[in-house]
Amino acid sequence: MAALFRGSRNLLLRWNKHVNLASVSTRSMASKTPVGFIGLGNMGSPMARNLLKNGYPVIATDVFPESCKELQDLGAQVVDSPSEVAEKADRIITMLPSSPNVIEVYTGPNGILKKVKKGTLLIDSSTIDPAVSKEMAVAAEKMGAVFMDAPVSGGVGAASLAKLTFMVGGVEEEYNAAQELLTCMGANVVYCGQVGTGQAAKICNNMLLAIGMIGTAETMNLGIRLGLDPKLLAKILNMSSGRCWSSDTYNPVPGVMEGVPSANNYQGGFGTTLMAKDLGLAQTTATNTKTPIPLGSLAHQIFRVMCSRGYANKDFSSVFQFLREEEGQ
Amino acid sequence: MAALFRGSRNLLLRWNKHVNLASVSTRSMASKTPVGFIGLGNMGSPMARNLLKNGYPVIATDVFPESCKELQDLGAQVVDSPSEVAEKADRIITMLPSSPNVIEVYTGPNGILKKVKKGTLLIDSSTIDPAVSKEMAVAAEKMGAVFMDAPVSGGVGAASLAKLTFMVGGVEEEYNAAQELLTCMGANVVYCGQVGTGQAAKICNNMLLAIGMIGTAETMNLGIRLGLDPKLLAKILNMSSGRCWSSDTYNPVPGVMEGVPSANNYQGGFGTTLMAKDLGLAQTTATNTKTPIPLGSLAHQIFRVMCSRGYANKDFSSVFQFLREEEGQ
Amino acid sequence: MAALFRGSRNLLLRWNKHVNLASVSTRSMASKTPVGFIGLGNMGSPMARNLLKNGYPVIATDVFPESCKELQDLGAQVVDSPSEVAEKADRIITMLPSSPNVIEVYTGPNGILKKVKKGTLLIDSSTIDPAVSKEMAVAAEKMGAVFMDAPVSGGVGAASLAKLTFMVGGVEEEYNAAQELLTCMGANVVYCGQVGTGQAAKICNNMLLAIGMIGTAETMNLGIRLGLDPKLLAKILNMSSGRCWSSDTYNPVPGVMEGVPSANNYQGGFGTTLMAKDLGLAQTTATNTKTPIPLGSLAHQIFRVMCSRGYANKDFSSVFQFLREEEGQ
Amino acid sequence: MAALFRGSRNLLLRWNKHVNLASVSTRSMASKTPVGFIGLGNMGSPMARNLLKNGYPVIATDVFPESCKELQDLGAQVVDSPSEVAEKADRIITMLPSSPNVIEVYTGPNGILKKVKKGTLLIDSSTIDPAVSKEMAVAAEKMGAVFMDAPVSGGVGAASLAKLTFMVGGVEEEYNAAQELLTCMGANVVYCGQVGTGQAAKICNNMLLAIGMIGTAETMNLGIRLGLDPKLLAKILNMSSGRCWSSDTYNPVPGVMEGVPSANNYQGGFGTTLMAKDLGLAQTTATNTKTPIPLGSLAHQIFRVMCSRGYANKDFSSVFQFLREEEGQ
Repeated sequence: MAALFRGSRNLLLRWNKHVNLASVSTRSMASKTPVGFIGLGNMGSPMARNLLKNGYPVIATDVFPESCKELQDLGAQVVDSPSEVAEKADRIITMLPSSPNVIEVYTGPNGILKKVKKGTLLIDSSTIDPAVSKEMAVAAEKMGAVFMDAPVSGGVGAASLAKLTFMVGGVEEEYNAAQELLTCMGANVVYCGQVGTGQAAKICNNMLLAIGMIGTAETMNLGIRLGLDPKLLAKILNMSSGRCWSSDTYNPVPGVMEGVPSANNYQGGFGTTLMAKDLGLAQTTATNTKTPIPLGSLAHQIFRVMCSRGYANKDFSSVFQFLREEEGQ
Repeated sequence: MAALFRGSRNLLLRWNKHVNLASVSTRSMASKTPVGFIGLGNMGSPMARNLLKNGYPVIATDVFPESCKELQDLGAQVVDSPSEVAEKADRIITMLPSSPNVIEVYTGPNGILKKVKKGTLLIDSSTIDPAVSKEMAVAAEKMGAVFMDAPVSGGVGAASLAKLTFMVGGVEEEYNAAQELLTCMGANVVYCGQVGTGQAAKICNNMLLAIGMIGTAETMNLGIRLGLDPKLLAKILNMSSGRCWSSDTYNPVPGVMEGVPSANNYQGGFGTTLMAKDLGLAQTTATNTKTPIPLGSLAHQIFRVMCSRGYANKDFSSVFQFLREEEGQ
Repeated sequence: MAALFRGSRNLLLRWNKHVNLASVSTRSMASKTPVGFIGLGNMGSPMARNLLKNGYPVIATDVFPESCKELQDLGAQVVDSPSEVAEKADRIITMLPSSPNVIEVYTGPNGILKKVKKGTLLIDSSTIDPAVSKEMAVAAEKMGAVFMDAPVSGGVGAASLAKLTFMVGGVEEEYNAAQELLTCMGANVVYCGQVGTGQAAKICNNMLLAIGMIGTAETMNLGIRLGLDPKLLAKILNMSSGRCWSSDTYNPVPGVMEGVPSANNYQGGFGTTLMAKDLGLAQTTATNTKTPIPLGSLAHQIFRVMCSRGYANKDFSSVFQFLREEEGQ
Repeated sequence: MAALFRGSRNLLLRWNKHVNLASVSTRSMASKTPVGFIGLGNMGSPMARNLLKNGYPVIATDVFPESCKELQDLGAQVVDSPSEVAEKADRIITMLPSSPNVIEVYTGPNGILKKVKKGTLLIDSSTIDPAVSKEMAVAAEKMGAVFMDAPVSGGVGAASLAKLTFMVGGVEEEYNAAQELLTCMGANVVYCGQVGTGQAAKICNNMLLAIGMIGTAETMNLGIRLGLDPKLLAKILNMSSGRCWSSDTYNPVPGVMEGVPSANNYQGGFGTTLMAKDLGLAQTTATNTKTPIPLGSLAHQIFRVMCSRGYANKDFSSVFQFLREEEGQ
């Protein structure tokens, strides 16, 4: 019975595949047809540039005219609104700051879905609530388009060097089509499952990163106060079960490693305010799914307090500095 | 005046060094003279057995006669009290459950220091408050003996196979003498600094381990609820900045890895009650040194609640199970 | 200049008042015209019954026909959808489980706003995200209607006895009109400010209540373990600075007070799952407004874990039981 | 055997009772015989002065000669050490900063117990670990003396005005004798039970106070950001289940109440560093008794971070300021 069901489902999938493949193949056959790009901020601009470098015509738009101008000078065609992008391209990438922007760009009065062509592939690389990704996918499907979430890890540097990692959620049949474009902008592309799982993977990774970083900062601080040399302590942790990315690759204590923000007064790197934003997403998805995240939740609060206390624009490893300051100083 | 004092202190140190070196060399010359061993529990027994295997005569004692009997059958000489051990051996290892036991065994009415010989090397492998280690070192020094703390990481299995890691604190001049014995019982011996830093290193490692484990459990649970496959999520974390020992070596989610407690209903491994004990030590040292440890402190509370709720004897990775249970179950 | 501005603003307010007063007076003159009621659950049913008792014709609807039947038997007119209610009544009260239900009932295909009459007064007594209240107010205003949020404190008992407390947010000019109806169902009606502040007041109160309750449970438990008699400890706290509602009115320790859930195996009262829901709202509003709430957030997580561990339907004071259980039991 | 032992112990107790009662009556009959006072700091000085005012000859000592001089000018006899005090007085009060000081003053080389007379009543008003109080009681009992713990609530002002509250732990038979002296220095004297319960009561109260204060600060901050007027929010909380001492008597938000530290830039009151110390005691007793205190523990960490960030000497209600500061400021 289960086998039968599975059989029927495969038939269904095959049918879907057929339909999808039709559109995919259309797109594939003309793979250097224009690609739309919406959201030309710190991350979006270098990503769009990498598409141009790879020979894709780019149809772009952004709320800031200056960002558009720069990309236009590099050969992109600039248009006035997301809906215009949708008229001219059947593959569109969006890179926006937060959930409300994504909702506006897709479903607003001049949004993509107002003019989207059937079979269009929509890839959203914004980091947002996976519930919003799912809503967008449903809305896109109603218009005959396909929506995938593909948030990135890696910062502005990785975006420029096309070294981003993309975590992709969406129907598996469209993954190859998405991958073709994403490999122009990133070094790793990971398929995570149904729509929203790209966001989920990113949120999960960043939550564990945040916990590991605060934990490393507390631990290093405690060890130093107990008389341990910071470099020796890091070495001991890194050969033991306390080891984590924040202790062995991005140590928050000045003097322990070179080439990390803690070696440069916590400049550059991943800002506390961005980490607080991602933890806010973790918090929201956990609240909505009734999942307990005691440490993730406290990590969120700590970075939030840091934002209130002047650490918003420092790298998030500055939590070591936040905790360390001596009484009486 | 300060310079003068420093000068005198150096003289004193030099003199001490002389005395110590003398005793070290005496001990080294007769390296297979008896070694005392106090505390023949789950960990102490296999450790003492490894000394016997390496050809050291062992003078042992324990509050439980059965434990003594077993070791006697293997060739050890059993005596009635720590003070008797001290009369018969000038190198003594102690392996005890907690700070009060250590205080009793060293400074109690039948304690080691009642009969200790000048120049005796005292190595305490218990996991205790580093402040107590320092007190014991001062008390030992008054009697002309040398105290070092050398807590272990690794469980009963590692103890049997002589694969423990020792983290050693104490005067550097005595480190070689300690190392000679410790290498019979462990695979790694790390010198950490002054007395108490061995404990500090162990406490720090275990605190970060605890934080990483709870963080991994929360993250895996959240990801699963958001639709991610647990194995895939673990793989993504382990190639990203969320990576930690608990995600890549000791994953708490059943089905993700083999050969770990989560694959065996959380049996074996490192009990929640033992982790709660170590976090209690972290808490106490942090309180005493006025060091903020927000995540370490919350991790302590979570394992403490788990102990109250029936998880005391399960491996500490069972925190995944503790957090996961569904509403309505 | 400020005075001038204030002057102009008053003119504007007066003009608004005039417009509003027109509709208000129409409604007031016919104060026993029908009142709509949507949402006939545990709370909504007794509330609607109290309106009937006070002589108001009630036009009601609910997704469960049985709930409708009951109210119909008491004299209410039952209709099929929120939009039909809106056709027949110019004062409507809604009492729904959560934000998505409110959005559906107001803005859905058969929602109130599809057929609402100009000048209609809409009072939502659901406990929801204040951001959703604000959205509903904006949507209502576009249709010429007025939306107020008026969540309640007090349970099913208070609802039956018309002893609820209403916390009301919305334009001040409409407060009297709202008060006329709310006093039929509650003993206290408090005006809190602009739309959403009723929700804000409720969320804030419940967050502090949750923190106080867990704090009281921890404190009583610690004191008992330190040898204090629970009744004596409660007495000392209540005459000192530790005093709070949970210690002096709703003590969570069995045997300390009578007539509270802790005296009745934590049955009745305010379920842990409901408290977890309200803390989820506090969490969400705090995340969205970037407000740090470290204790509120941890309280949320604790009640969430309790829900996963079988405490969902016990009174929230059962946190004492959750924390207390002895090792080994 | 156990019964026999219990029997003998009862005999012993009866005998002790006899001895104690004898000494009590001796002391009572000569109630204006000298009272010893050790520890003349901010709190101890005004307490000793109130004993003088009530006609008791005072024999005092302190490590700071200036403090002694001041009290000498008011008529006290100053001696060189705690042991000398013990030679000259059979009722002694101690008021010291922390556990190590208490241990030194009672059991050190010049400590009270070196010269204490049989039947002497020892009252310790320091706030310390109850486990230390118990140790002191055992040590005193060995010398035939009686030790009681009697920590205070109330600050320097209350000490000057003899308005302190004393929480007293110790054998009930001695309570009247203690009360006679304590009523000269305080307005309330509460008997809490066996030795250590006075400390326990104080620690418990202050832990709940700390939780209530941070909770109130978070709640008020959240409410304000959601558009509520602070005074109105305080009023709503205080008539509802969120009510606590910190919301209705010592509100942390400037402008809500007069005559509290928040109305005076958080000067005066109870310093954050003192609250952090008391929470450290709560943490230690909870760790030692394996009692989970998740909120108490987090409250400890928050005040500890505040101490590191420049809030050490501000009133502990300044946590509102610590949490509030806006991003970008």
